[in-house]
Amino acid sequence: MPPPVSRASVVRLLNLTSNQGCRGCGRTHSALEHAPHGHSHSPLGVRGMATPVDVKSPFGPPPGNTDYAFEMAASTLRFGAHATREVGQDLSNMINQLPAADRSQAKIGVFTDPNVAKLPVMEVVEESLMREGLNWVTWEKCAVEPTDKSWQEAVDFSRTSHITHFLAVGGGSSIDTAKAANLFVNYPEADLFDFINAPIGKGLPIAKKLSPLIAIPTTAGTGSETTGTAILDIPSRQFKTGIASRALKPTLGIVDLNNTATCPKEVAISAGLDVLFHSLESWTAVPYYDRSPRPSNPINRPAYQGSNPISDIFSRWALETTIKYLPRIARDPFGDEEARAQMLLAASTAGIGFGNAGVHMCHAFSYPISSLNKGRPKSTQYHHPSYSPNVPLIPHGVAVSLTAPAVFNFTAPSSPSRHREALSVFLGKERAHEADGLKDVDVGRKLSEEIQRFLDLVEVPRGLSKVGYGSGDIAKLVEGCLPQRRVLDLAPVLAKDNLAEEKEQLAAIVEKSLNW
Amino acid sequence: MPPPVSRASVVRLLNLTSNQGCRGCGRTHSALEHAPHGHSHSPLGVRGMATPVDVKSPFGPPPGNTDYAFEMAASTLRFGAHATREVGQDLSNMINQLPAADRSQAKIGVFTDPNVAKLPVMEVVEESLMREGLNWVTWEKCAVEPTDKSWQEAVDFSRTSHITHFLAVGGGSSIDTAKAANLFVNYPEADLFDFINAPIGKGLPIAKKLSPLIAIPTTAGTGSETTGTAILDIPSRQFKTGIASRALKPTLGIVDLNNTATCPKEVAISAGLDVLFHSLESWTAVPYYDRSPRPSNPINRPAYQGSNPISDIFSRWALETTIKYLPRIARDPFGDEEARAQMLLAASTAGIGFGNAGVHMCHAFSYPISSLNKGRPKSTQYHHPSYSPNVPLIPHGVAVSLTAPAVFNFTAPSSPSRHREALSVFLGKERAHEADGLKDVDVGRKLSEEIQRFLDLVEVPRGLSKVGYGSGDIAKLVEGCLPQRRVLDLAPVLAKDNLAEEKEQLAAIVEKSLNW
Repeated sequence: MPPPVSRASVVRLLNLTSNQGCRGCGRTHSALEHAPHGHSHSPLGVRGMATPVDVKSPFGPPPGNTDYAFEMAASTLRFGAHATREVGQDLSNMINQLPAADRSQAKIGVFTDPNVAKLPVMEVVEESLMREGLNWVTWEKCAVEPTDKSWQEAVDFSRTSHITHFLAVGGGSSIDTAKAANLFVNYPEADLFDFINAPIGKGLPIAKKLSPLIAIPTTAGTGSETTGTAILDIPSRQFKTGIASRALKPTLGIVDLNNTATCPKEVAISAGLDVLFHSLESWTAVPYYDRSPRPSNPINRPAYQGSNPISDIFSRWALETTIKYLPRIARDPFGDEEARAQMLLAASTAGIGFGNAGVHMCHAFSYPISSLNKGRPKSTQYHHPSYSPNVPLIPHGVAVSLTAPAVFNFTAPSSPSRHREALSVFLGKERAHEADGLKDVDVGRKLSEEIQRFLDLVEVPRGLSKVGYGSGDIAKLVEGCLPQRRVLDLAPVLAKDNLAEEKEQLAAIVEKSLNW
Repeated sequence: MPPPVSRASVVRLLNLTSNQGCRGCGRTHSALEHAPHGHSHSPLGVRGMATPVDVKSPFGPPPGNTDYAFEMAASTLRFGAHATREVGQDLSNMINQLPAADRSQAKIGVFTDPNVAKLPVMEVVEESLMREGLNWVTWEKCAVEPTDKSWQEAVDFSRTSHITHFLAVGGGSSIDTAKAANLFVNYPEADLFDFINAPIGKGLPIAKKLSPLIAIPTTAGTGSETTGTAILDIPSRQFKTGIASRALKPTLGIVDLNNTATCPKEVAISAGLDVLFHSLESWTAVPYYDRSPRPSNPINRPAYQGSNPISDIFSRWALETTIKYLPRIARDPFGDEEARAQMLLAASTAGIGFGNAGVHMCHAFSYPISSLNKGRPKSTQYHHPSYSPNVPLIPHGVAVSLTAPAVFNFTAPSSPSRHREALSVFLGKERAHEADGLKDVDVGRKLSEEIQRFLDLVEVPRGLSKVGYGSGDIAKLVEGCLPQRRVLDLAPVLAKDNLAEEKEQLAAIVEKSLNW
């Protein structure tokens, strides 16, 4: 057995020259400087994998302040009708990994909302926990669009109940609430705003390992079962934002076809539109190697890193799947199983994609679009069909869609090839050739038209005016969008270094989005 | 705040009827029985997401003993030239998550082989650990093809050194050795054969959470940085097998383009062939919903579950990427950066694919093909170019390739559509139409021809006879393949319930593989 390597031997190693003839180019340079020749501009972003030409020290970072790496992290996901019934065993298995002394202290918190609490999925979950003889408490008051108030109540409940294992059953709202509860149970002294994204909150990094969290989605939408994102509304500020950190990722997502079997049509469509734009925004986001600043510690590399070769695989697949199957949900929301199954796969797949790449303008605009509606005079508030008539609501997926035709017309010049590829997916195999023949300058307009055609197919209101906004609201919507830096900074073309110009660009997009 | 839900209220819930009118089909059945209508046969395997017709109790499992779910688990992966230098910070971050009292006990074990130990990558790693002031020991004796003896030495070293954090730097051999060391440090009383796959070992399940492991691959091949698989050779039994469990997965894989910059051509090609057949075997493996028995506890659901809609996305992408870029490595192994970068992506991507779906016959045959060569008289042993002249070796990727043309001709009838799609990838965009026009019965033969053409392109010996096997070895090779149930059970067409017929089928494949 060799002796352990001492500091001295490492210093010796460090003094070794690592120079060698380069069999690639004949020049002599260190193997760490290797790979400087040329940059591929393949849409797979290999360019980002290539290294700059002049690395001074083999141990120094490459020059510049843009990032040189991207990270791919996702929750473990289990797919299958009936898989929900396994959740009790999963929690038992997790508890059995604890030191024997701690097992008796294990307490599961089940987070859901008043509607899902009445559905068969909760019977299956509770029977499964009971079968394993587990100790659990249920929080049924997750708000459909969580607020700082509803989060705080869930956090207080979790802290006083000494919850050690978290289980979320529902849509993104319940899963996000459970993520927040998990975070603040593990930071018992922290205030909500310590971790909420800056500038609204302090946006502190999450350095601790959080408690186990299992997510069981009942909609095919947010992909929250695999992301580190949790979104909340702050009515007092008329502002919607959240917390984004890999540390928030669920440990396991259980994606069960049975759990979307009773999802109302409008809810399924809105959720599906969220999937569509998770895919399209992450596919077109600024590439990770153009994002700056580069983190000084990998733990600070944001989850929203920009588009990258691996997120592209997910985003592209989810885009194709959603365009194919969401219209079938609109036609037959309960009977078309294949469509429901594929939309569940697409939701989680898009979740892995945008969860590691990010989203941009459609999501940035969706927050004020949803938020401002709640603050308006009752008579002018928008209520979406099949959601509670008592709660004014522009569902998230619908809010995201309303600016999309204008947004992708705006972003197309950043990468005509990517936008052309997206267009060809909308056009379908038969009409794909229409995209190939198109001049770069025409790609944005054509993509915008096809997005509109798709939104008509799934019955989205035709523009912001149909949900109660007028030209008098443009300034307010832009003001509500501007602070969403976490996502806006991933938007191509946008003049981020020139506030006046950026405002103009955003205002133009809102104006175009009033009526299609 | 609602009161915690009591057992009583759950019993009440359980007694609620969950029957409701099915808006899909007009029949009345429980929402959990929903989704019985029809099976899609889409290559995305949605059929597997549909549920059987007659579920008796909403809380009971569906009928039958085949699986109804699949699970997707992968290590977190970081891609980028220069990312290796971050590993010290990653380990510091992990150590800082320990209770304060345990941090001073943290000790890192660095696992590598004598060749990689001399490369610049180890300088970068050690400088990075030093910069963080970490405490580490290095084990440089990982064998290029690990054996039970080389594993045992690494395990003994790890146990006596009280290693708490594992770091592997090298090819699959070093990463697999570190996985084994991690496992047996956490099971201090266990014997190697307790966890090695049955029938050779006891194949016990791994219930404990293992220690953190970071893997830094120096080849684009095994994908071991993202899988729960560890392979070893047992010379005394002339048998190659391993341990497969999600629990073995590295915590983080750091995939750095700089680390393959000096990889010799033949090593890069053999590694790339492993990627090719990881993709093609997982793409064509028995679907998860035809695999039995269904696990009684999700922790026992095998990592090798059969093909499924998510592994398909990875396997398909890796197949396309490898077919496009591996021949470029053969032409210009050091200078073609884009090819090296894409092969690194393909290796990890295929790793996620087969790591959750499995491989089958090519891998099952590769084990005796590699193993028996070592036992042959010196004069007849095969040595592959640019590997050590002192060690007889049929590199893993080459061993996997030798039976491939015969294997996929044999499996094609199980799913002509999947094999046709694979064929069209080999043919490329220009010739893809040749696949569309083909009759189902001709797909296997044509795919076999295209695989041969590809193997010629990357200079693989044309058949088993070129590595020293003759018709006299057929029985031995079949005998060495038969016990590889973990992978053979995922092979389509194979007559697993009829030993005599299965032997005949395997013998026929070996015979066809002697000469192309």
